[in-house]
Amino acid sequence: MAVVGRHGVDGVHSTETASLGVNPDLRKERSQATFDPTELTYVIEGGAERTRRRRYIQTLALNDPAFREKHHSFLSRDEIYSSTVRRSIIVMKKMKELNIVDPSDQNIYKVAALRGIGSLFTIHDVMMIPMLQTQADEKQREKWLPKALNYEIIGTYLQTELGHGTFVRGLETTATFDPRTQEFIINSPTLSSIKWWPGYLGKSVNCGILLAQLYSRGKNCGLHAFIVQLRRFDNHESLPGITLGDIGPKKGFTGTDNGFCRFENVRIPRESLLAKYAKIDPDGTYHPPISDKMVYAGMVVSRVSLVTMTAGYLADGCTIAVRYSAVRRQTELTSGGEEPQIIDYQSQQLKLFPHLASAYAFKFAAHNIRTRCDQIQADIKSGDISSLQELHGLSAGMKAFTTLATNWALEVLRMSCGGHGYSQAGGFPKIYGMLTAFVTADGEYTVLMLQTARYLMKCTAKAASGEKLPYSVAYLTTKRESKCPAKSENDMLDLEILVNAYKHRAHRFINEAARQLESCLLSGKPQHIAWNETHMYLIKAADVHCHYYTVMNFVQYLQSTEMSQPLRDVLTSLCQLYALYGIENNAGDLLQDGYMSGEQISMVTNQVVALLAVIRPNAVALVDAFDIPDEMLGSILGRYDGNVYENLYEWARESPLNQTEVHHSYHEYLKPLLKARTVDAKL
Amino acid sequence: MAVVGRHGVDGVHSTETASLGVNPDLRKERSQATFDPTELTYVIEGGAERTRRRRYIQTLALNDPAFREKHHSFLSRDEIYSSTVRRSIIVMKKMKELNIVDPSDQNIYKVAALRGIGSLFTIHDVMMIPMLQTQADEKQREKWLPKALNYEIIGTYLQTELGHGTFVRGLETTATFDPRTQEFIINSPTLSSIKWWPGYLGKSVNCGILLAQLYSRGKNCGLHAFIVQLRRFDNHESLPGITLGDIGPKKGFTGTDNGFCRFENVRIPRESLLAKYAKIDPDGTYHPPISDKMVYAGMVVSRVSLVTMTAGYLADGCTIAVRYSAVRRQTELTSGGEEPQIIDYQSQQLKLFPHLASAYAFKFAAHNIRTRCDQIQADIKSGDISSLQELHGLSAGMKAFTTLATNWALEVLRMSCGGHGYSQAGGFPKIYGMLTAFVTADGEYTVLMLQTARYLMKCTAKAASGEKLPYSVAYLTTKRESKCPAKSENDMLDLEILVNAYKHRAHRFINEAARQLESCLLSGKPQHIAWNETHMYLIKAADVHCHYYTVMNFVQYLQSTEMSQPLRDVLTSLCQLYALYGIENNAGDLLQDGYMSGEQISMVTNQVVALLAVIRPNAVALVDAFDIPDEMLGSILGRYDGNVYENLYEWARESPLNQTEVHHSYHEYLKPLLKARTVDAKL
Repeated sequence: MAVVGRHGVDGVHSTETASLGVNPDLRKERSQATFDPTELTYVIEGGAERTRRRRYIQTLALNDPAFREKHHSFLSRDEIYSSTVRRSIIVMKKMKELNIVDPSDQNIYKVAALRGIGSLFTIHDVMMIPMLQTQADEKQREKWLPKALNYEIIGTYLQTELGHGTFVRGLETTATFDPRTQEFIINSPTLSSIKWWPGYLGKSVNCGILLAQLYSRGKNCGLHAFIVQLRRFDNHESLPGITLGDIGPKKGFTGTDNGFCRFENVRIPRESLLAKYAKIDPDGTYHPPISDKMVYAGMVVSRVSLVTMTAGYLADGCTIAVRYSAVRRQTELTSGGEEPQIIDYQSQQLKLFPHLASAYAFKFAAHNIRTRCDQIQADIKSGDISSLQELHGLSAGMKAFTTLATNWALEVLRMSCGGHGYSQAGGFPKIYGMLTAFVTADGEYTVLMLQTARYLMKCTAKAASGEKLPYSVAYLTTKRESKCPAKSENDMLDLEILVNAYKHRAHRFINEAARQLESCLLSGKPQHIAWNETHMYLIKAADVHCHYYTVMNFVQYLQSTEMSQPLRDVLTSLCQLYALYGIENNAGDLLQDGYMSGEQISMVTNQVVALLAVIRPNAVALVDAFDIPDEMLGSILGRYDGNVYENLYEWARESPLNQTEVHHSYHEYLKPLLKARTVDAKL
Repeated sequence: MAVVGRHGVDGVHSTETASLGVNPDLRKERSQATFDPTELTYVIEGGAERTRRRRYIQTLALNDPAFREKHHSFLSRDEIYSSTVRRSIIVMKKMKELNIVDPSDQNIYKVAALRGIGSLFTIHDVMMIPMLQTQADEKQREKWLPKALNYEIIGTYLQTELGHGTFVRGLETTATFDPRTQEFIINSPTLSSIKWWPGYLGKSVNCGILLAQLYSRGKNCGLHAFIVQLRRFDNHESLPGITLGDIGPKKGFTGTDNGFCRFENVRIPRESLLAKYAKIDPDGTYHPPISDKMVYAGMVVSRVSLVTMTAGYLADGCTIAVRYSAVRRQTELTSGGEEPQIIDYQSQQLKLFPHLASAYAFKFAAHNIRTRCDQIQADIKSGDISSLQELHGLSAGMKAFTTLATNWALEVLRMSCGGHGYSQAGGFPKIYGMLTAFVTADGEYTVLMLQTARYLMKCTAKAASGEKLPYSVAYLTTKRESKCPAKSENDMLDLEILVNAYKHRAHRFINEAARQLESCLLSGKPQHIAWNETHMYLIKAADVHCHYYTVMNFVQYLQSTEMSQPLRDVLTSLCQLYALYGIENNAGDLLQDGYMSGEQISMVTNQVVALLAVIRPNAVALVDAFDIPDEMLGSILGRYDGNVYENLYEWARESPLNQTEVHHSYHEYLKPLLKARTVDAKL
């Protein structure tokens, strides 16, 4: 099979070692693949035309010297932040010049130009503008939208507070209406009510959408959104009564100035309350919104895109670890023999291939819920919100399920690269630093799992009373098989048998959670205590549901997607590995009620081992198919050309500590200590 | 029960918020503990006198303004490195002034003064000096030891190479003896042979112990250690033929200049070969060492100390997460009710308490193998190396087992702190950055597990032929129970039943690995292929052995240690939780062969849930008992006084990005974009 087509790869490989050509081990790997990775790239992206377009837009950004810069680990936080500001602004100018106007093209261009870190306008684009579009009334839209779309103002979204995260109703910031002046008075009444975490709030934005408790006529009217100016438009200084700042460095997102904001009697006009749904009259009469379902829709969209991004990070990690494992040779097997590629060790394959299978499983899951999300958004526009609840239940769980699984997977992949995985040169610390934020941000893992569990408990009750359930939970109304029918190791590769095992597991644990909850309630405990005392079972229920959904979707994706037979064979092996590895690691779930026997679990284990060898020859081609340009991967270990050691050495020499032969601390501290007794160079 | 005695805690709490007193939630937690945490501190440390001494020495360092500095996340790498150099040198001076001479006292003082990061002399102290003491001959010791002990030279240990990690025999650096000049010629013949990773090699040291392939008379005589000068003693410049540098930033250990070193025809005298065991005559005749067992002993010591350090990092993580979970209130349970402490959520308890139990399990395991290691070192001095092999097998596995478990635990604990866990202010990113290095360094996880497996396979063969086995593997000679005898949930708390379950599991999977290996061999595969194709089973065997050992040791520790009944009750609950949680998470292992029934696993699950509630009132006292001073913990979330939000705010305000109200990038990039249309401050 041919080497995957690289879109302008020579142009973007700008290191001095480019003349080395491709590492022979990687060349061999690519030549032995049984399928064409380019076909797989097309399948993932939905057709050759999309791939071509994506590569074209990407190359425009990657080839542009305006976006090149030093490796981030060599820069200070101040330098990285400044570079984010600089590049974010150039991106906008260039997109205008290049006439990149399609939102999907714009997104490709931005991500490539900023090398995967956020643009200064991310929250402005994905939160502020949509909030104005959907929550502001006609007059407000007229006033603010053109300015926002034209970047005359830059905003963020001020929700979380120092003491308040996922539980939004607990927010403390107040907006008290003063009918005498027709203004709201904004206050942070406590330390814990200081706004905390909003992206780009610290130094960058001058406006924001603020969430605060609205008070009028002495009464709390609940949480509402306001548009608030934070900094002067002429000199960027914060307005009187407003204390703004950066919240300090974090585990990742070094270049982002997540900020804090404290309000002391800040007066904003009555017209600042986003008034499409809730309104306040000049005399302080408050009119509540009719429905809050729309907030729901926004959360669903954002969680669906997190699943997509998460699958992308996992693909990054797999690309790095698989390529490096093909390049790295370690530990002779026979005395004096050649050291094998570490990808030939079974233990190494166990670290790589199950996660490679997950990367594909998550990509296909993301594709599925994104498609359904687009459909539902269209439905909503035409007034139909019937599917919103199902997608909310599914997207919350899938965001939690995929981010946590990827969190652990990335660290396993990093450690599979040995010591060099620990170096910033490998790229893993940065990738992990970003991905791990997603486990907590935009709905903390456990909270989201419990939301999905709540939906599943409702469905279980409906199923019991004979109601029809939507697509993703319809299995709760079917009868469960009591035994896995597999009789041989070969049966264990049967996709229907595998899906049914996951279905059985999900069904059983969801019922078990319902049973535990009910037994708590029957013992006289109030609802909230019973719920809390069933957390462990509820989280398990949500987890097994998402796991089932991922396996089922992988199988359906294979069944419903056109592809060549060689490609289908490879993806089928990956699908089998994904499902079997999950059973192996949760064997107790299937053994406990006798659904599988001990012998069947042994068959599963044997097939996991057997599939490692099946996937082995295609491993490099499978990561090549993700088609991630080196500049965006940001990893020396994962380079397409495999020239790892040459470039590690080159990279290290650029380390700022190497800019002088003798570090200044020697003269200050070390020399006086060493009190050198010999002046000649040799002992 | 009284609040744990804080050794000079007021003196070291130097923030402006010290006057706030202790957070009322934490006060309540401490008052409700059923045992005295001070007693537990004494138990952990081996007596009140040791605790008193440790606190005294610690306070000397913690109270010394010479060691205070800004939070590391506010400093550049250059600043952190310079500070490491500065403080390392002050530590030595101060220890002399204060007459701190006992090695244990010195260690306490160094760790406190350097706040847990390494001293510049760490590798010098733990590798270079011991190597000179044990591998150099009389004449070499006379020449080098006084200089090293007096820090006239500073050294490191040059083993790993750019392309060579755990497989030491694969190292490529050459030392070719030239009888004409009576010198060795040192060369890095390839790119991959450049020495890579040695601590403090980049900028700090001027000498090193070098591992290289000795060639004499055209023959490779194998790996040997040499003492080599790397930099001039008068001006610290690298010597001719030697290229030195820092390898660049890493995921952690920011202040350490791990370095690279390339040799080009560097000539060192014949006397540089450490010659206690191997020798070379002036004519090039080579005399090999009689035994290489001693190298073994050094590795055992270093892995045992890694287990101890690992338990310490896990204690750090538990202290932060448990205290913050008691302080943080989130999500009202009933509408309008007070938001509960998050430590009251069952799902939160599941994130905290099993790892708290692990921290104690690992502390006691570390204590056990350290004691045995001390004994064996004494034995070795008197010529008895009979126990070395057993301790090697055990320490390799336990280093791998505890570091990997702690790796995941620390991230669970961090994420249990929500968004603030992601901030550098919480301390987790730094702690994790250091701990995670230990999974790979000093023997990579998988390689060590396979070493332990190799030992276990030898033992199984011996057991089959009726040989007696040493202490930690003696169970391989006993008959296995076929069923777990537990009949009730209460039986599941029986420590003997729990130990036996782990013993059964270990025994079964070790036999299974042996069986798989044998069946591979019987099918005609050569030894190295069979070994590779059994990796999965072998690693499992080593894992279950270490897990059994940890549980068994926890139980024995309880049985053999004097303590009050209230303390014994609490530690017994922790021990039960550690064992039951492990069964819950590996239920398949015990169900597969019918050792436990599905009903018994349900009993296990119910007891895990029940134990969370038992441990709940003592959780804060259990982390207080680790007795980690705030300055060493380095976490605002984990402060002893619980004044989290006040100090987060104060910390954030010191962020370097907040040193100006308007960041310079505004003038450079943002202002031209915004083209402000309004000059007044308000819209």
